[in-house]
Amino acid sequence: MSAGGNIIALSGGVGGAKLALGLAACLGPAQLAIVANTADDFEHLGLSICPDLDTVMYTLAGLADPERGWGLAGETWQCMDALAALGGEDWFRLGDRDLATHLQRSLLLARGEGLAAVTARLCASLGVRHTLIPMSEQRVRTVLDTDRGELAFQTYFVRERCAPRVQAIRYLGADAAVPSAALLARLDGADGVIICPSNPWLSVDPILAVGDLRARIAASRAVAVSPIVGGRALKGPAAALMEQLGLTPSALEVARHYRGLLRGFVMDREDAAQADAVRALGMDVLVTDTVMTDAASKARLAAEVLEFLSGLRA
Amino acid sequence: MSAGGNIIALSGGVGGAKLALGLAACLGPAQLAIVANTADDFEHLGLSICPDLDTVMYTLAGLADPERGWGLAGETWQCMDALAALGGEDWFRLGDRDLATHLQRSLLLARGEGLAAVTARLCASLGVRHTLIPMSEQRVRTVLDTDRGELAFQTYFVRERCAPRVQAIRYLGADAAVPSAALLARLDGADGVIICPSNPWLSVDPILAVGDLRARIAASRAVAVSPIVGGRALKGPAAALMEQLGLTPSALEVARHYRGLLRGFVMDREDAAQADAVRALGMDVLVTDTVMTDAASKARLAAEVLEFLSGLRA
Repeated sequence: MSAGGNIIALSGGVGGAKLALGLAACLGPAQLAIVANTADDFEHLGLSICPDLDTVMYTLAGLADPERGWGLAGETWQCMDALAALGGEDWFRLGDRDLATHLQRSLLLARGEGLAAVTARLCASLGVRHTLIPMSEQRVRTVLDTDRGELAFQTYFVRERCAPRVQAIRYLGADAAVPSAALLARLDGADGVIICPSNPWLSVDPILAVGDLRARIAASRAVAVSPIVGGRALKGPAAALMEQLGLTPSALEVARHYRGLLRGFVMDREDAAQADAVRALGMDVLVTDTVMTDAASKARLAAEVLEFLSGLRA
Repeated sequence: MSAGGNIIALSGGVGGAKLALGLAACLGPAQLAIVANTADDFEHLGLSICPDLDTVMYTLAGLADPERGWGLAGETWQCMDALAALGGEDWFRLGDRDLATHLQRSLLLARGEGLAAVTARLCASLGVRHTLIPMSEQRVRTVLDTDRGELAFQTYFVRERCAPRVQAIRYLGADAAVPSAALLARLDGADGVIICPSNPWLSVDPILAVGDLRARIAASRAVAVSPIVGGRALKGPAAALMEQLGLTPSALEVARHYRGLLRGFVMDREDAAQADAVRALGMDVLVTDTVMTDAASKARLAAEVLEFLSGLRA
């Protein structure tokens, strides 16, 4: 069975979106579905904000800001500045053009459309041809138990800049949530599942926690790309979070975290010394350059991951 | 009794806001309350939009766009352009900075604050020192019966650019609405009520229709400034609307419309020939230059109107 026919990628925000873009360069629109974490979604200023969906959508549309790592390139901030002058909440920066996405999504949701349909509509408007699917139509919300009390994800991540020490992470609503219908349809007969280099605890685990998704993915041919390279997270708080959870930040620990779920694990050359320990966990290993700095390195890594996947036992 | 102690001005949008600004130049913050029409308010893109309140607020704050006649000076349109690209509704143009007002107001209303409190808070943030009061906390909505069917105000006014022929105007909810508490408190012992040169049917009548406001204002010392000069409306559709309602667009017809309500009427020198006919309706008349082109002419007209008001029988 070729790995090219029906691939599902699981993604959080920036790091995941990079590999998703690489995969989109390798696979046709019918061959790839990207499933984004929605447990970071929140209601803010009366709007429905879906940071990971939007990061993937903007990245696939070629509209993402390459420097800042979130939001739209060439964005302006007139509304946020005016909101600050009115005493409004401006800790979560919404650009003027980005605001249109939240306004339109919020309006369509309020009219009764589901998040998957709204996402498909927004993607079509922006010229995104590959399928982007929210992990679930139901509300799942990441909550962190910290030394400063229970914090909603965006409060911890953006307002408090990951400063509170995390003691535990919960995905409220995940048990009762159902995977998106489009995802379930794809998973039946999927040729492979690729877990993008996103934060395992904050971006991937919420997806796996939805209903019986973990078991379904474990039964498929799944690989993950380590978001930890040389003991550091390429983006975001993954390494710091691992330390707070009592774990050594390493590709090996990430592989241990995914034990029982994966057939294969992709790690950076910098971490090659850990490859045997990962193999001992029962996974095939691909050691390669995993740091994606441009379009070419994204497509190259994606192609290598797809080839690795197609070579795994079915 | 001096006319300077407790003055209430009733205003719609642009034309009314000009005189309100003139009055604010003549009277201290404690001496003047401006009551704005809220029957043009509507829900759009999930936001609570209050065009007349905002026009007066922006004008008093010195932030209004002097050319366009609505919205903020130096406004940008990034969000609307992006919304159009997403297939969203962009017929009601909301500027990026203006959007902050609607977001913040909608949020505070959703949290249970009343419109009067929210308006006061927004005004304070923008440095507006005079009191701006919505006519009512309750929802009143202007609906027009036209040759193209029943139309909500903004649909008629902005989307259809006043093209449909108006057969009748209704103020839904006005009977059951209660005037704002701050307005009622001011009306008790008001030294005078000034109806600004706003559209009598679309901007002033909705205010008068709220509960028993018409009777309360008739019992006070009230004057109006004609929005019709030389048979033309200085701004907006008043003249065209009068013709559709079978009336000759003239200051005299405006005075007739307000018969029984006013002690005095202010009209332009251009219409001096109609002054006697207005006096025959039982009103004192002030004939002066009513076209406000700059800050000086606004303050001058305001001062003349206040003097006229103070000379009327109590």
